[in-house]
Amino acid sequence: MKKRILTGDRTTGKLHLGHFVGSLQNRVKLQDEYDTFILLADIQALTTHFNNPELINSSIYNIAIDNLSVGLDPNKITFVQQSQVPAIAELTVFYSMLVSVNSLRHNPTIKSEAMQYGYDDLTYGFLGYPISQTADITFCNADLVPVGDDQLPHMEQARKIVRRFNDLYGETLKVPKELLSATPRLPGLDGNSKMGKSLGNAIYLSDDAETVTAKVKSALTDMNRISVANRGNPDICMVNKYHKAFNVDEYENICDMCRNAKIGCVACKKTLSIRLNQMLDPFRERRRYFENHQGEVRDLIVCGTSRANEIGAETMSNVKKAMKIII
Amino acid sequence: MKKRILTGDRTTGKLHLGHFVGSLQNRVKLQDEYDTFILLADIQALTTHFNNPELINSSIYNIAIDNLSVGLDPNKITFVQQSQVPAIAELTVFYSMLVSVNSLRHNPTIKSEAMQYGYDDLTYGFLGYPISQTADITFCNADLVPVGDDQLPHMEQARKIVRRFNDLYGETLKVPKELLSATPRLPGLDGNSKMGKSLGNAIYLSDDAETVTAKVKSALTDMNRISVANRGNPDICMVNKYHKAFNVDEYENICDMCRNAKIGCVACKKTLSIRLNQMLDPFRERRRYFENHQGEVRDLIVCGTSRANEIGAETMSNVKKAMKIII
Repeated sequence: MKKRILTGDRTTGKLHLGHFVGSLQNRVKLQDEYDTFILLADIQALTTHFNNPELINSSIYNIAIDNLSVGLDPNKITFVQQSQVPAIAELTVFYSMLVSVNSLRHNPTIKSEAMQYGYDDLTYGFLGYPISQTADITFCNADLVPVGDDQLPHMEQARKIVRRFNDLYGETLKVPKELLSATPRLPGLDGNSKMGKSLGNAIYLSDDAETVTAKVKSALTDMNRISVANRGNPDICMVNKYHKAFNVDEYENICDMCRNAKIGCVACKKTLSIRLNQMLDPFRERRRYFENHQGEVRDLIVCGTSRANEIGAETMSNVKKAMKIII
Repeated sequence: MKKRILTGDRTTGKLHLGHFVGSLQNRVKLQDEYDTFILLADIQALTTHFNNPELINSSIYNIAIDNLSVGLDPNKITFVQQSQVPAIAELTVFYSMLVSVNSLRHNPTIKSEAMQYGYDDLTYGFLGYPISQTADITFCNADLVPVGDDQLPHMEQARKIVRRFNDLYGETLKVPKELLSATPRLPGLDGNSKMGKSLGNAIYLSDDAETVTAKVKSALTDMNRISVANRGNPDICMVNKYHKAFNVDEYENICDMCRNAKIGCVACKKTLSIRLNQMLDPFRERRRYFENHQGEVRDLIVCGTSRANEIGAETMSNVKKAMKIII
């Protein structure tokens, strides 16, 4: 039997190249080896976007299509719409008895995310993010969770909760492990380390070829390089970072040409857009199919969630028996 | 159609005369006029007793039988085992996005209860008590919640959450009202304002006649009254407070006799035990029946919870539609 992976995305907008590099391309590689659950995390979307239900709603479809577009196989993966799995909410409530408020307040990821969203007065739900994530992982008995290193404190918290539960009520839950992704973070086209819609510095998987070309044209390069005749410094050029991520074969050569003033920024950007569009073209083709077959996407989400609910019901039965609250 | 009442007890032990005076006798009066939901609050029991699953388990039956013993009619009331209603957990999670951590920390009831349990480091679940209670009230669209005045901050919080939800997502939930009980709190037999098993100062609904008599014998009276010949001060006598609560007809007369040294403490206590046992005898008879028919009690809990789940499923469908997370 295959080991199970739990991964997913908050349904707060469409996915961009940063998501692809950091997570999606890895999912595609892993889907054959692992039973892959992809959470459409609409409850966790509410922690920051509770006042924008329209965005959350449209993103449920968009995120599913983003995942399918990069080559995730509907026959291999299982989509799970988080808000439609009561077991996740039930586990969140049970686990909340096993975690102190202070330990959540001191969680470094919660702290930095709260800063990022400018919350000086956290909501109760936002503070409980690591508990909710533990419920996601354990409702389906996931063995592995692919994460970046910013998520390690959450994984540590998840293991703590699971061990505490097993200590109190007897061995019931699987202790999850992380599958650490080594991919460095892709910066925005403007050099900002965060990418986002509001920053206008991201290339989305759903962008068309013209948009990609235009965005690459606007990218930040070596600002000290006045003309093509000057030698460039690829180390401070965003276009170069994208070559490194998406144009591996030509990367070293392009670095050399830049340093020796043998390629100008205009040509270098053109090469990058062509390369990106080559990669994105098959994604666009799959996207077109699924956008024209939204009913099929809906069925994938509904059927996947239904499979998840069967597994969740079994987990809840075991959990409640262990806690002796079944009469 | 009858209005609905939501009331209940945490499943952390058996009920005593304080519960009867403060709540149970009121439930009996209200059961004809209202559709009465009695929550067996095993999730809220976990907030303080997560490490004692055996107690929570046995208390689910004991609390149900306590309620039946005082005359609640199985054909009129609906028992709801909280942990078996996923809608309550789901609503708790949704509402947690609408409440700030600071507002919970400043809730006076949470503060005083945390002090009482000696928590300097609250669990996340304990802090979320008012949110969980709002979920209890709203999952079944309760109109009224019978409470003592210590629970008013929780009711205010519940209304705030409901109004916030309705503002954000459109009118979906009923704004609940309290049904304030005017009954003064019954003190423990030892004069302590809190009653409890660990304090050994409570008469339980399940105590037999001998136990009641023995407990009344040990009750705190006017300590300045050395002999029967001295005049007593009924205002500082616990036995007198119990006469006031349970022996209304004789109460004024007993006060007079005590003040005029016409009744001694031994006789006064005897009168009280007789009166209490008279009241408790029909409770004992009903208890005996249900203790001999535990299967019937189980069916009442299971069927009631199943009715609650039907209502809860309808509520969740409306809530999720309003939040636009139904795809």
